[in-house]
Amino acid sequence: MKKIKLGMIGGGKGAFIGDAHRRASRICNDFELVGGVFDSDYEKSKEFAASEGIAPDRCYPGVEAMVKGELARPEEDRMKAVAIVTPNYLHFPFASLLLKNGFHVMCEKPMTMTVEEAEELVKLVNQKKLTFALTHTYTGYPMVRQMREMIRSGMLGTIQRIDAQYYQGWVNSIIHGAGSRITGVWRFDPAMSGVSSCMGDIGVHAFNLIEYTTGLEIKEVLSDLNPIKDDFTMDLDGTVLLRFENPKLKGVIRSCQVATGEENNITLAVYGSKASLKWAQENPNYLYLLTDSEPVKVLKPAHGYNSEFAEKSHTMPCGHPEGIYEAVANIYRGMAKSIRGEKFFPGEFPTVHDGVRGMKFIHSVVNSNRDGNMWKKL
Amino acid sequence: MKKIKLGMIGGGKGAFIGDAHRRASRICNDFELVGGVFDSDYEKSKEFAASEGIAPDRCYPGVEAMVKGELARPEEDRMKAVAIVTPNYLHFPFASLLLKNGFHVMCEKPMTMTVEEAEELVKLVNQKKLTFALTHTYTGYPMVRQMREMIRSGMLGTIQRIDAQYYQGWVNSIIHGAGSRITGVWRFDPAMSGVSSCMGDIGVHAFNLIEYTTGLEIKEVLSDLNPIKDDFTMDLDGTVLLRFENPKLKGVIRSCQVATGEENNITLAVYGSKASLKWAQENPNYLYLLTDSEPVKVLKPAHGYNSEFAEKSHTMPCGHPEGIYEAVANIYRGMAKSIRGEKFFPGEFPTVHDGVRGMKFIHSVVNSNRDGNMWKKL
Amino acid sequence: MKKIKLGMIGGGKGAFIGDAHRRASRICNDFELVGGVFDSDYEKSKEFAASEGIAPDRCYPGVEAMVKGELARPEEDRMKAVAIVTPNYLHFPFASLLLKNGFHVMCEKPMTMTVEEAEELVKLVNQKKLTFALTHTYTGYPMVRQMREMIRSGMLGTIQRIDAQYYQGWVNSIIHGAGSRITGVWRFDPAMSGVSSCMGDIGVHAFNLIEYTTGLEIKEVLSDLNPIKDDFTMDLDGTVLLRFENPKLKGVIRSCQVATGEENNITLAVYGSKASLKWAQENPNYLYLLTDSEPVKVLKPAHGYNSEFAEKSHTMPCGHPEGIYEAVANIYRGMAKSIRGEKFFPGEFPTVHDGVRGMKFIHSVVNSNRDGNMWKKL
Amino acid sequence: MKKIKLGMIGGGKGAFIGDAHRRASRICNDFELVGGVFDSDYEKSKEFAASEGIAPDRCYPGVEAMVKGELARPEEDRMKAVAIVTPNYLHFPFASLLLKNGFHVMCEKPMTMTVEEAEELVKLVNQKKLTFALTHTYTGYPMVRQMREMIRSGMLGTIQRIDAQYYQGWVNSIIHGAGSRITGVWRFDPAMSGVSSCMGDIGVHAFNLIEYTTGLEIKEVLSDLNPIKDDFTMDLDGTVLLRFENPKLKGVIRSCQVATGEENNITLAVYGSKASLKWAQENPNYLYLLTDSEPVKVLKPAHGYNSEFAEKSHTMPCGHPEGIYEAVANIYRGMAKSIRGEKFFPGEFPTVHDGVRGMKFIHSVVNSNRDGNMWKKL
Repeated sequence: MKKIKLGMIGGGKGAFIGDAHRRASRICNDFELVGGVFDSDYEKSKEFAASEGIAPDRCYPGVEAMVKGELARPEEDRMKAVAIVTPNYLHFPFASLLLKNGFHVMCEKPMTMTVEEAEELVKLVNQKKLTFALTHTYTGYPMVRQMREMIRSGMLGTIQRIDAQYYQGWVNSIIHGAGSRITGVWRFDPAMSGVSSCMGDIGVHAFNLIEYTTGLEIKEVLSDLNPIKDDFTMDLDGTVLLRFENPKLKGVIRSCQVATGEENNITLAVYGSKASLKWAQENPNYLYLLTDSEPVKVLKPAHGYNSEFAEKSHTMPCGHPEGIYEAVANIYRGMAKSIRGEKFFPGEFPTVHDGVRGMKFIHSVVNSNRDGNMWKKL
Repeated sequence: MKKIKLGMIGGGKGAFIGDAHRRASRICNDFELVGGVFDSDYEKSKEFAASEGIAPDRCYPGVEAMVKGELARPEEDRMKAVAIVTPNYLHFPFASLLLKNGFHVMCEKPMTMTVEEAEELVKLVNQKKLTFALTHTYTGYPMVRQMREMIRSGMLGTIQRIDAQYYQGWVNSIIHGAGSRITGVWRFDPAMSGVSSCMGDIGVHAFNLIEYTTGLEIKEVLSDLNPIKDDFTMDLDGTVLLRFENPKLKGVIRSCQVATGEENNITLAVYGSKASLKWAQENPNYLYLLTDSEPVKVLKPAHGYNSEFAEKSHTMPCGHPEGIYEAVANIYRGMAKSIRGEKFFPGEFPTVHDGVRGMKFIHSVVNSNRDGNMWKKL
Repeated sequence: MKKIKLGMIGGGKGAFIGDAHRRASRICNDFELVGGVFDSDYEKSKEFAASEGIAPDRCYPGVEAMVKGELARPEEDRMKAVAIVTPNYLHFPFASLLLKNGFHVMCEKPMTMTVEEAEELVKLVNQKKLTFALTHTYTGYPMVRQMREMIRSGMLGTIQRIDAQYYQGWVNSIIHGAGSRITGVWRFDPAMSGVSSCMGDIGVHAFNLIEYTTGLEIKEVLSDLNPIKDDFTMDLDGTVLLRFENPKLKGVIRSCQVATGEENNITLAVYGSKASLKWAQENPNYLYLLTDSEPVKVLKPAHGYNSEFAEKSHTMPCGHPEGIYEAVANIYRGMAKSIRGEKFFPGEFPTVHDGVRGMKFIHSVVNSNRDGNMWKKL
Repeated sequence: MKKIKLGMIGGGKGAFIGDAHRRASRICNDFELVGGVFDSDYEKSKEFAASEGIAPDRCYPGVEAMVKGELARPEEDRMKAVAIVTPNYLHFPFASLLLKNGFHVMCEKPMTMTVEEAEELVKLVNQKKLTFALTHTYTGYPMVRQMREMIRSGMLGTIQRIDAQYYQGWVNSIIHGAGSRITGVWRFDPAMSGVSSCMGDIGVHAFNLIEYTTGLEIKEVLSDLNPIKDDFTMDLDGTVLLRFENPKLKGVIRSCQVATGEENNITLAVYGSKASLKWAQENPNYLYLLTDSEPVKVLKPAHGYNSEFAEKSHTMPCGHPEGIYEAVANIYRGMAKSIRGEKFFPGEFPTVHDGVRGMKFIHSVVNSNRDGNMWKKL
């Protein structure tokens, strides 16, 4: 199948989110990165484009130039979709420009700075009949999708309580100690990031996971936010009480960016009158089904008991975490270094000598058993 | 950087190992699949090549034809490396043919059928000065590499005991019950698979992990293997006692393909006189450091305490399992379906409407807090 | 050392809390149960007293009779302390009567029905200089005590967030389905139980754990409670926002009695500017210490790194959960049944035949090794 | 019910096994410790007896004196059973003397020094029709008993593989470093301990668990043992291959006393053709049921799905580890110290002030909710 031509705005050298988008687009194998505006500094952008093998004439000095340049190309050669991986305040102007000019958009979250901008994008998408996707990453996990399918099947009974958590600790080392670096981090500048740090950056993922898995709309919130430091204006921590249409269902979102030592601890528990489901991102392949009277059941990918949607969302056999692809990729990377004559770490890929050792092992083992469990030299 | 042109032998439609190699090569982004022999049935091979966007003239009817065809091309356009993902008995003939003709080789394990074949490959690699890599996949995990670096630094003291396990259960459903399918599975045919099933297919990974992480050579083995069924000639289960140069170090490998319900349960524990390290594949980001007098320490990727080799072997920030790329890839896949007008699952990618919901959440939360923890409608 | 003579009010046949108090008093070996009022039905009380080996004349028809009877005894033979394990509304009248008459009191929580009653008890305790203990059970765990000592040492830095959870599911099966049994359960009758079910019964433990471990006072609360069912007046679920003296510290208590499938899931996480501590009751021997830059550390009992208080709070060597005493007790129980000629389960205690098997195993193993790893028959 | 009068041999001051026996006998409440020989040094024995409240005339200078003294008492006042908690070489002489004189015996494992002694005890037990129990402690855990019942019901199908482990690390600090203390530890003196250290002390527990849970007899063993140090004659580490009546079932026991950092890591996995069961001692309340096609099931105590034997083997409701009794006992202990005017740790028991705090919490929470989620002061 022909690949969809993809552009990118932002995501230049050192940008981890841009790298994640490129890797993901290569993994799914439906897209081909053909151009973009990778850095606000055009020279850096060109350098980065070259390192990625992008044709020089498709590394543009700005988004308007990119739109103009791509529209000038024959349709079959033109970018079809563009990924926006810039700081938040640029999402709306770039997304609306792209949509107006007929490009599909993959956008980082939070989608915009204001509700009004967000609603403006809805209008544009509807009017242009284009595809707009938002990277609420965690909805892509197989067992989150399985959770959604199970909840929507009604098997939990009436939902009675929802509890979501998103705890990180990385802001700690920025705000404490001698080299306090609040200024200079765009995420802490309301002009670039929006009205909220903790809730805007991570709490919104917890919010999204609740609505994604349960299909229920959160109707009202009551929040208690904490800037942690006197000289800080945005929230770095907070708890949000939730109300739904059913007044007998209550919920809570807890989110923190200064939970020292927490890495990316997202959890979701949905408690129903008949059963409950619990999931935690740091071990994303485990989904726990609890009932009052049965043993706890641990669901994992690659089993017939999962829904079609969950099963179509992974490719590995059971027991192989999806990260195993990155393990194999590391071996390919080592091999590439060797082929190119670059320096590589000892052990960066198994060699023909490891192959010999393996064959000696297999044959010695078989011979030891054949000869009545005798010691055999390798 | 220019990508290395890659060929593939085997790995056609439905072959999970071939798919894993292709994904891995795309993730590391150093290779470009340009041709191959994907199936012994040429028609199927061509069909598969087309689906992968391979130029028709580089889908060859056989390996000799491929070698000839590629050598006829100008060097800069020629395949540089070939991945062999066929059944075991074909590894040696294809690998030796490729090496003799100057191609680098990525080969599935076990490398060959016999020790003699393996040693023949060593000679060829040395003679031709080519790169030969073997997919002992688990050596690609960051924390396995960290384990290697820690052990080799000597921090465990004298190693006293080594215990490796590789338990799977998938053969169970093949050998038991009405539809016993021993025949027809190439892995159970010694002519295609070699002298061993359990030890050749999985035990050898445990063996490799021991030598990889410790740098110690296993000198002698004593094994006890079990074919489980009377009409079965290969081992499906076994225990192997290990001897090393130091007579005061002993070890054991336990391996089983009929451990009902086990998925891909590989574990490695290395016990030293000063400290010990434990790792388990199903949660590959956790490495446990044990001592007699300190709390157990849990090491994870993306921390300054890891070695350079381990840190260069992953790309995500802490708390993000590498499988998160596949989650994002799933979202890209959903977007691609939408762009192409294909049917997709509800929830296959977050849309602009999710973006509006998110913005309402963020603003309501901030307003609730600002107004003294009042309820706010979304 | 002479044992302290103990009385008990409540805790008759089938009362799990009373049984827990008796077992605990036997384990610590400082008390001897000599009498009490075990049931409001005197006949049942006497029957129960007999089964426990209590002298008939110390099984009293009521608490006033008990006080009178005991005071009539010579001081060295008299009850010194009384455990109150009745429904909540009886705690205050019995505790105040006992204190006024010079008895030390061990009381179940919640201590009283109202704040005023609670303060009245404080006055009495101060005036009489007696010991009054409340069974906030979880403060007795070694690693909770270790958590307290570590937090109070200041090693966490400034505390930034506190998150406590107490989730159970047992009320589910009572309130849902045909046999809804709200009436008849004393815990759901405000006249016997107090103003709250979920918060009064379990939320208060989470509250206590926070103040116990951190030494901080909770100054203000904002709560959102849920009765779950229309015909139910008490809370079965709720979230409580917490304020402390430091306005930059916030916290939350989440508590639920209808979290289907949860058993007794109490967790406490205290996040400081330098480090954090996490504990969960269902695996009470594990205390997790998190920092931004070091591996997660898992502290367990019976190690030199623990505080004196924690180490004095357990007796087993490391790796032996305290529940191992109950395992040995089960073996003693089996032996007692056998001695008494009662029916016992096969396997209820290991016999002399198991001893023979063990000796054969040990000797065969030693002989096999001595003879060069040969098979030896048992 | 009247308590059975119990004597004890060994288990004086500082002896952890003796303490465990006494606690267990108090927990089950069927026994009353009335006398014994607690130390080979009579003065120390008397001192210890006094501290335990044993009548001075029942603290005997030796076992023969004890037998004589007790036989001289009226039968209803006499010891019925005696617990032997001495070093191994004394088990046989004391057990045989006691049995010959009509006492029931609770004996520590390993039962004797030789197979012949063990068989002699069988004869005596049969002849005297007395109860003889051996503390294979782990058979007392509820979920081990549940494992036994499930396996014996046949639900695993044909058993195909058995894997047991018992890893400890405590011997490490004894044999390494400056203060090597091999001599002086009775467990390392074959004259007191027997032919084996690792297998005799802990491997035999793994052996026992296999036979206990499966009901299968181990027919033959092949072992590979390791003394670790040149100057050491006993095994501190070893692997044992197992043969059963069914030649298609194989198994392995792995045992080590120098597995640095391991505490008391006993695991048992039994793999059948239909299902498998896995258990680990350090979290003894979790039993894992694995099948090829269903989610992993986690069984825990206090559920209707367990067998009667398992359910009769614990007393707490679900989610309360049995060690919770020790937590309550710690609170009782703190109260006792206070009553006796001894020094206690701050926080050793919750006081009346904690009770006031709790009541303030409960009422403030209820009031906050009643008044529309307003902040309320405590």
